[in-house]
Amino acid sequence: MRTYLDCIPCFFKQALEAGKIAGANKVTQKRILDKLAKDFPKFSLSASPPEIGRDIYAIVKKITQKKDPFAQIKAKSNRLALKIYKKLKNKVAHSSDRLLMAAELAIAGNIIDYGVKNSLNVDTELAKILAQENRSIKQESKVTFDYTSFKRALKRSSTILYLGDNAGETVFDRVLIEEIKRIDKSKNITYAVKEVPVINDALIKDAIDCGIDRSAKIISSGSDAPGTVLPLCKKSFLSLFNKADMVISKGQGNFEALSGSKRPVFFLFMAKCPVVAQHVGCKVGDIILSYHPGKRRI
Amino acid sequence: MRTYLDCIPCFFKQALEAGKIAGANKVTQKRILDKLAKDFPKFSLSASPPEIGRDIYAIVKKITQKKDPFAQIKAKSNRLALKIYKKLKNKVAHSSDRLLMAAELAIAGNIIDYGVKNSLNVDTELAKILAQENRSIKQESKVTFDYTSFKRALKRSSTILYLGDNAGETVFDRVLIEEIKRIDKSKNITYAVKEVPVINDALIKDAIDCGIDRSAKIISSGSDAPGTVLPLCKKSFLSLFNKADMVISKGQGNFEALSGSKRPVFFLFMAKCPVVAQHVGCKVGDIILSYHPGKRRI
Repeated sequence: MRTYLDCIPCFFKQALEAGKIAGANKVTQKRILDKLAKDFPKFSLSASPPEIGRDIYAIVKKITQKKDPFAQIKAKSNRLALKIYKKLKNKVAHSSDRLLMAAELAIAGNIIDYGVKNSLNVDTELAKILAQENRSIKQESKVTFDYTSFKRALKRSSTILYLGDNAGETVFDRVLIEEIKRIDKSKNITYAVKEVPVINDALIKDAIDCGIDRSAKIISSGSDAPGTVLPLCKKSFLSLFNKADMVISKGQGNFEALSGSKRPVFFLFMAKCPVVAQHVGCKVGDIILSYHPGKRRI
Repeated sequence: MRTYLDCIPCFFKQALEAGKIAGANKVTQKRILDKLAKDFPKFSLSASPPEIGRDIYAIVKKITQKKDPFAQIKAKSNRLALKIYKKLKNKVAHSSDRLLMAAELAIAGNIIDYGVKNSLNVDTELAKILAQENRSIKQESKVTFDYTSFKRALKRSSTILYLGDNAGETVFDRVLIEEIKRIDKSKNITYAVKEVPVINDALIKDAIDCGIDRSAKIISSGSDAPGTVLPLCKKSFLSLFNKADMVISKGQGNFEALSGSKRPVFFLFMAKCPVVAQHVGCKVGDIILSYHPGKRRI
């Protein structure tokens, strides 16, 4: 997805929020915005939002001199999500369609990121997700939710590449991965995370802390953008990305980075901003399970 | 009110929206944002938001080469509001406290501006306002609504300076002004508007089109900012501003420009953004009737 002009005010908002989270005082926050304003005319709108996001967070890291401004938030998100891991498993175990529930929860877990960026009360939001006892979350929104294709593709695929999104959310991914493995132990699943700290995106440490290593191989994609931007990725990752029978892409950042991908991808994310919602044709807050056919059929 | 860092992303949003309204294509919209980004580091945050807003709309006008990009919107707002003028009068006539209802409607009329900036359906919003038959709007929010002081000050004042805000909303101001004059014909009311086109702020023509001239004298403050920024105002206006027994200031822009005023001012506005809402201590969308005592007592 290319960057829309409407993304631009949001870039300034994100830079400011990231500066605040990095503990910058007002003067430093202003310096961040000044630097962004100075660099802004150089940005190409044909780049995807995560590519520009990468530049923005580089500014924040450089000016605040913090290598990982979101370290505490990531650790907290992991802790919060791990705390409800058993409840999530329980919810899946008691569903009429376990895989569907696991997929819905994995997408709903994306709320953690939303919380970080919009000061939502993550505890309350997670409690709400868990409170939806006997109801399918997807039934609440009339958006693209191609579960049939997802289920079919899963059945046919031996090697699955799962692109992680944010810390904390990783626990929700674990629940889905474990459900996939429960159905068929022989599935070979690889979970890819970002190479270096960028916003609250999960790194290898987060994936291990959240217990993903018990059912999937964890690798870094090589991307240091808040999305899997292919030209930034490692060769070894690209090889797997191209060869895997199925790619499951989590989060809006990965959708923005890969919506034009040549290979088929299943996008699982929550539409978090009006620009993406309009692009997809849904409402902000809707949960999406969208099959992108790429250039060849899966 | 000084400009907060959180206002900055919104400045870019406003510039983009204004560019769109001025009919600029994507390339021109990007040029507007580039110019704003270039000028941005020069802006002082000790200036009030309307002072910076003035610079932003100067950029939009210069780049789009449109002297009055909001001309059509202003004309439409006037038409829409005039269409319901009789209903507004009727609503006031059938209220247990006519002045209170007129004041509340005057503030609620500010929704027109909100509609312009946020693509709300103004017709629907106005219909909602009118539908609140026997209910005081203010009772819905627990915010500063100092009607007692307002009523008392009105009683004691002979010369009243009323600072207008947006086109269309002017019709709602007219209803309040007519109510004040109905209570006491001897009141000498002056209605001040902006000097030149800036966003959808009312000009002398709008005030006349909306029929304000039937019960008040219409003047220009001299300000070309989207708020009554005193250093930009005419001497004759400043003299009246300082001498008037009472100043009624409509709209968020005038609040932002005059919240630090030395003289007492009654601010009537709808809190339209999170920054102002936090500054005032209310929620976005709340209607405010706030008495600012200034340095001397009224």
